[in-house]
Amino acid sequence: SLLLLSGVLSLLSSYANAGNNGLALTPQMGWNTWNHFGCDISEATILNSAKAMIANNLPQLGYNYVLMDDCWQAPARDPTTGAPVADPQKFPNGIKDLSDQIHNMSLKFGIYSSAGVYTCGGKFGSLGFETIDAQTYAEWGVDYLKYDNCYNEGLAGTPRISFERYANMSRALNATGRPILYSMCNWGEDGPWNFASTIANSWRISGDIYDNFDRYDDRCPCTSMLDCKLAGFHCAMARIIDFAAPLGQKAHQGAWNDLDMLEVGNGGMTFDEYVTHFSFWSILKSPLILGNDITNMTEETLSIITNKAVIALNQDPAGSPASRIWKVPLKGGGDISLWTGSLVNSQWVIAVLNTSPKTVSWDIEFSDVFIDYGKSAQQDSWVLTDLWQKDDSGNWGKNLGTFKGKVKGVKVA
Amino acid sequence: SLLLLSGVLSLLSSYANAGNNGLALTPQMGWNTWNHFGCDISEATILNSAKAMIANNLPQLGYNYVLMDDCWQAPARDPTTGAPVADPQKFPNGIKDLSDQIHNMSLKFGIYSSAGVYTCGGKFGSLGFETIDAQTYAEWGVDYLKYDNCYNEGLAGTPRISFERYANMSRALNATGRPILYSMCNWGEDGPWNFASTIANSWRISGDIYDNFDRYDDRCPCTSMLDCKLAGFHCAMARIIDFAAPLGQKAHQGAWNDLDMLEVGNGGMTFDEYVTHFSFWSILKSPLILGNDITNMTEETLSIITNKAVIALNQDPAGSPASRIWKVPLKGGGDISLWTGSLVNSQWVIAVLNTSPKTVSWDIEFSDVFIDYGKSAQQDSWVLTDLWQKDDSGNWGKNLGTFKGKVKGVKVA
Amino acid sequence: SLLLLSGVLSLLSSYANAGNNGLALTPQMGWNTWNHFGCDISEATILNSAKAMIANNLPQLGYNYVLMDDCWQAPARDPTTGAPVADPQKFPNGIKDLSDQIHNMSLKFGIYSSAGVYTCGGKFGSLGFETIDAQTYAEWGVDYLKYDNCYNEGLAGTPRISFERYANMSRALNATGRPILYSMCNWGEDGPWNFASTIANSWRISGDIYDNFDRYDDRCPCTSMLDCKLAGFHCAMARIIDFAAPLGQKAHQGAWNDLDMLEVGNGGMTFDEYVTHFSFWSILKSPLILGNDITNMTEETLSIITNKAVIALNQDPAGSPASRIWKVPLKGGGDISLWTGSLVNSQWVIAVLNTSPKTVSWDIEFSDVFIDYGKSAQQDSWVLTDLWQKDDSGNWGKNLGTFKGKVKGVKVA
Amino acid sequence: SLLLLSGVLSLLSSYANAGNNGLALTPQMGWNTWNHFGCDISEATILNSAKAMIANNLPQLGYNYVLMDDCWQAPARDPTTGAPVADPQKFPNGIKDLSDQIHNMSLKFGIYSSAGVYTCGGKFGSLGFETIDAQTYAEWGVDYLKYDNCYNEGLAGTPRISFERYANMSRALNATGRPILYSMCNWGEDGPWNFASTIANSWRISGDIYDNFDRYDDRCPCTSMLDCKLAGFHCAMARIIDFAAPLGQKAHQGAWNDLDMLEVGNGGMTFDEYVTHFSFWSILKSPLILGNDITNMTEETLSIITNKAVIALNQDPAGSPASRIWKVPLKGGGDISLWTGSLVNSQWVIAVLNTSPKTVSWDIEFSDVFIDYGKSAQQDSWVLTDLWQKDDSGNWGKNLGTFKGKVKGVKVA
Repeated sequence: SLLLLSGVLSLLSSYANAGNNGLALTPQMGWNTWNHFGCDISEATILNSAKAMIANNLPQLGYNYVLMDDCWQAPARDPTTGAPVADPQKFPNGIKDLSDQIHNMSLKFGIYSSAGVYTCGGKFGSLGFETIDAQTYAEWGVDYLKYDNCYNEGLAGTPRISFERYANMSRALNATGRPILYSMCNWGEDGPWNFASTIANSWRISGDIYDNFDRYDDRCPCTSMLDCKLAGFHCAMARIIDFAAPLGQKAHQGAWNDLDMLEVGNGGMTFDEYVTHFSFWSILKSPLILGNDITNMTEETLSIITNKAVIALNQDPAGSPASRIWKVPLKGGGDISLWTGSLVNSQWVIAVLNTSPKTVSWDIEFSDVFIDYGKSAQQDSWVLTDLWQKDDSGNWGKNLGTFKGKVKGVKVA
Repeated sequence: SLLLLSGVLSLLSSYANAGNNGLALTPQMGWNTWNHFGCDISEATILNSAKAMIANNLPQLGYNYVLMDDCWQAPARDPTTGAPVADPQKFPNGIKDLSDQIHNMSLKFGIYSSAGVYTCGGKFGSLGFETIDAQTYAEWGVDYLKYDNCYNEGLAGTPRISFERYANMSRALNATGRPILYSMCNWGEDGPWNFASTIANSWRISGDIYDNFDRYDDRCPCTSMLDCKLAGFHCAMARIIDFAAPLGQKAHQGAWNDLDMLEVGNGGMTFDEYVTHFSFWSILKSPLILGNDITNMTEETLSIITNKAVIALNQDPAGSPASRIWKVPLKGGGDISLWTGSLVNSQWVIAVLNTSPKTVSWDIEFSDVFIDYGKSAQQDSWVLTDLWQKDDSGNWGKNLGTFKGKVKGVKVA
Repeated sequence: SLLLLSGVLSLLSSYANAGNNGLALTPQMGWNTWNHFGCDISEATILNSAKAMIANNLPQLGYNYVLMDDCWQAPARDPTTGAPVADPQKFPNGIKDLSDQIHNMSLKFGIYSSAGVYTCGGKFGSLGFETIDAQTYAEWGVDYLKYDNCYNEGLAGTPRISFERYANMSRALNATGRPILYSMCNWGEDGPWNFASTIANSWRISGDIYDNFDRYDDRCPCTSMLDCKLAGFHCAMARIIDFAAPLGQKAHQGAWNDLDMLEVGNGGMTFDEYVTHFSFWSILKSPLILGNDITNMTEETLSIITNKAVIALNQDPAGSPASRIWKVPLKGGGDISLWTGSLVNSQWVIAVLNTSPKTVSWDIEFSDVFIDYGKSAQQDSWVLTDLWQKDDSGNWGKNLGTFKGKVKGVKVA
Repeated sequence: SLLLLSGVLSLLSSYANAGNNGLALTPQMGWNTWNHFGCDISEATILNSAKAMIANNLPQLGYNYVLMDDCWQAPARDPTTGAPVADPQKFPNGIKDLSDQIHNMSLKFGIYSSAGVYTCGGKFGSLGFETIDAQTYAEWGVDYLKYDNCYNEGLAGTPRISFERYANMSRALNATGRPILYSMCNWGEDGPWNFASTIANSWRISGDIYDNFDRYDDRCPCTSMLDCKLAGFHCAMARIIDFAAPLGQKAHQGAWNDLDMLEVGNGGMTFDEYVTHFSFWSILKSPLILGNDITNMTEETLSIITNKAVIALNQDPAGSPASRIWKVPLKGGGDISLWTGSLVNSQWVIAVLNTSPKTVSWDIEFSDVFIDYGKSAQQDSWVLTDLWQKDDSGNWGKNLGTFKGKVKGVKVA
């Protein structure tokens, strides 16, 4: 259940934009090849998806990055110059040509590499090649780099070691003069929320997501990311939300917690679960990077990823991630939690998450919602809007009425 | 409930004053802009508060530092010299003039910066600028530096890395020749109680306090500070007491555990809760830095912060923080704990903390109180004084009588 | 209980062979002196065992490494050259001669040292002698190095420190030009699964095994190896399986998790327990290094270690370790867990582990088995084979029939 | 309850004496000033205690080190040479004279310093002064150095950093040419059991002991020493035994786990508790350093510390610490645990520890006692001796008879 609250308090906002490339003032949006296509990509895969983005009017909603993930590389770098080379079978016209075509569609183009000797897919990595790789990316017209963590030769374990490894690429990107959004993907190792905001626009906070609501998987073994030594993968969606709970305080304009790419539309969750997935990625200010096959979407999938009201939460100029106010375990397993976040123009977002198998009914107290904002806010009257219902004009966001002190009996499936 | 015990044993005290600036032989006292005003400060805010300190006779009680926290800075350093520059709107007469005015009131003046590339409020930080910043502070007549931890570029994770970053400013301050109290604010990262006593006069032990008695908040996620990887903020008062329990052993004259600034008078706790707050900050030998609006205090607030008997516990020359002797969980939530500490002149302090919602009645055994001092102390008779009741002359500290072996049925709200 | 599943899905496999010596494309197999003989070894011990390997037709099954563990060394290195010297009493003809004899039997020869100033048995170690030791090993015709972790002078504690210490020997081995399988034995310290795949062919994940099914021993004190500070020894077999559960994701061709040498045949477990031991080492793609006295084996022992169908799981070209899908605690202690792994040719392995003292009956759902492979695999029909029963021709692997959706009531002793 | 078991198995023992000063082939024994006198020491204190050692025939039992702990120092080093200087009031004749007098009594003399800028008592420390301090100690005729950990400037947090700091003094001591027993006192930080055996003869494993059986104290906050970030002090005796349980595997001849100095005779425990204290320090091969006032001992105290049979366990040439085989919680609090260790000449020690307030009766199974030694030992007959009862000649060690398979109903107070 996701509600939007509208009121009269003025908003305090004093975030520093610590990054220096001027990008990602709100979380980046786009599409990435990996979750659906994995290593099985080519020029055609990417161009077809770019065209599907336009056909579905996604750029107008903010989805403007087309991101080519791992396995675009040739077996080896150029033996003379050391420059990266694309797989000539998959990309017969080269990356520059692909990038130009993307740009001609008024979209932006992103690439992938790893801060290691190999990428996760076993291709050549960028460790020790930061300068030439950044220069080549700039020459190719790249607008975005996702930078992974495989085969890092033990260059992890303290924040300083991880910082230096990722800062080397940050400096190289900045040195090109081309604004390139820098998306760190070190899986939360060594706490990037503590050190990455001056070098990157976003940082992954966990191991890879998989298309599942809340199943525990041994391959994602940590119970918290604060000092996790094996981020792993196969992290269910609701577990990543749990990991993100204490971290919102560390994100701000130009520097975001990345909860990993979206699984909406890939088939492993129900419609309601995907609604929850998209809602929480939005209010936690995660980048919204589609991971499904956008050339072949159901109406349900499209209805989720095009909800303008929810996207507006993610792109709110205040850039303030929602916080979890309380979490209560439920009989029979799972728990219910209340999340709130402030927005511009004296608005707030409230979200209630229920991970149990049953629908529950709960009172939402304004003394909880406005715990950070004092008694006048807590005692005021508020207009509530449900962003997943439609108003009379057919737009997302139905007015639920005016409430004072509390909202009784909120039902959460 | 807080009791003071008077007896006959001689006091053993062999603390080394390991600092070398001769300051903070007892915990520093004063007022700081942050908890009430945040970034919204100016010359007027600070001078008005200084005047209010005098009008309320606070300096006579020991409150002599006026501390200007974050957001005093101009957007950038002096482009030629690299020296720090104050915001010309907020401080049209400059910091030196402000400092002079503070000194003319016989008060001392403190400033703020961060051991990072930015301050927490996004202003320029001091990392790499330690020498010129310390010199400028000395020229401005600064007596105190609060030195924060934001945007530290991954320079944390081992005690040595944190030590070096903070020692650089310590050396720079000492090199100025001006005695400047050095208040480390690294939020307990890497265990400053283990390494900071030779470089600083106090060190924060946790994330930021907020004005709440004992609410759990996800934004202060660690259950202990001994190896916490995300100190966070929104740490309730009683949680900070819990964090401090094992750390008293590491503090001594000139080197104190800082439990963060006081919230007394800011409105988020009841009178009794603020009494507990002030009492524990005193007996744990935390700096007593007021964080409320001292230009506008209630009688209740004033009565707490001006309790001479409790302040005397904090300023006791022995400088020995109280220890928690036991903690017992109570049915229905919360727990009760006994704390004791030795003072000069054969006196001891006893405090009993009850974090449950109900009043409890408990026997206090002298065998517990004097666990560290042998059987003669445990079996002796002791005169007890309640420091939150007043004697016949209207001064804090009412004689409760003489007790032997135990005090039966102490009621703690 | 161990079952092999045969079906129609095509296998996705994109592992990088990150090693550069071309060895251990499947987990190494062989025999090692330590578990049975400890320090009590000589030329005769080793040659007799090599002959027994041949007499028992073990090389035809893949067991081709004869590994000489600790205590082969003379009291000191050559005082002039610093080169390693063998104990002249134990090895009167020298190591080169021993190696030649092993090679003449068409077997391969391995040696042992430690990345410290001493070996665990107190002999000279290789720390600081990597180059001369690797060169000498190559001159002696060594094909395999087990490299231990004792007396490492504090060169552990961060991945980088451990990586560098072990990479030094990796580089020295590669520099000899002789392909030498490099088996890291740092007991899982600092997470070798995160850093070792580019320098070694396998890495131990825990302290030393001992010949016991699942007894807890204080000398193997960690409950997980993800951040264990004392790997210890006396780790029971089932505890090592538990340690391995999250780590399969990090192994691939040429780079394996080493669960330590086999205890099959040493007498501390029952036949069924040794069957479990051998089965799990196989499906988790651990090296299969015999640790018993192969000159004197029972029929039971021989029947376990020569099960071709189970060995084939270990040597499957896909090199994909099985994952634990779920673990459920059982009343009365112990738990039951389901493990599955993909093989080449559209086959899968399923294993069910029961560590309780009682036989249990359980339904195996294909939706669990194929959790990673989508709904078509989950709903398909599968032919099941029990690899520990024999078919009509007397070969391991009895067809159990065709199943759809689930296998009901699997009994696991 | 402590029993000694005599039998027929031959003992396997292959420990490396990794130290290079030839000292402490069995754990050191002696007396230290700190536990009883603290900083209140002088030449007279030490000489009187040395004379009392002789008067009580302690040297014949092995107690031969007279150890002067902290607070022997003058306020400052020699301003010209930087050499350490003794307090001229406390030691008017200097340390060399004191050392000579100790040596003239055929005793050995030990001194104290800290691997920091100050000692724990606030005197000058040895960090950066290792060479001149070691040389001066050697000139003074020092035989033993206890080297503490206070004020270490953040030089801790990884094994390598701690190793280097302590190795610096080890090298300096070795360079003097005088054999000086090196007793590391870094409180178990960074796991000295993993790195110290090549540089020191013993290493403390925990914070300071206090004279109490098993009380929990917040000032000793860790539940295990494997990754403890605040060793603290006020660690009760039984908690240190618990800390030591997994560590015996790391000690051997010349390299011992130090459980801290003895409290026997200081009055905080009962006779039975002190018997347990002394027994476990013995079988865990801790140094046996008396910490009471040996000029004034009761018969009870003397009877404990002069039990030759128990001392012989500590000084057994095999040097193999006992291991905890099992620990079982008892109703009403506390637990019972079985410990066994091998000795020379086919003997074993068995100890049963009961930390509950009640006497319990328990069967001791030989299959547990000989868990490491195979079935023949487990099924053999064994002669048992109770080392805290006296035989007919009045010597410690009463024959309890011959037992097979188990000892039924052992009563443990």
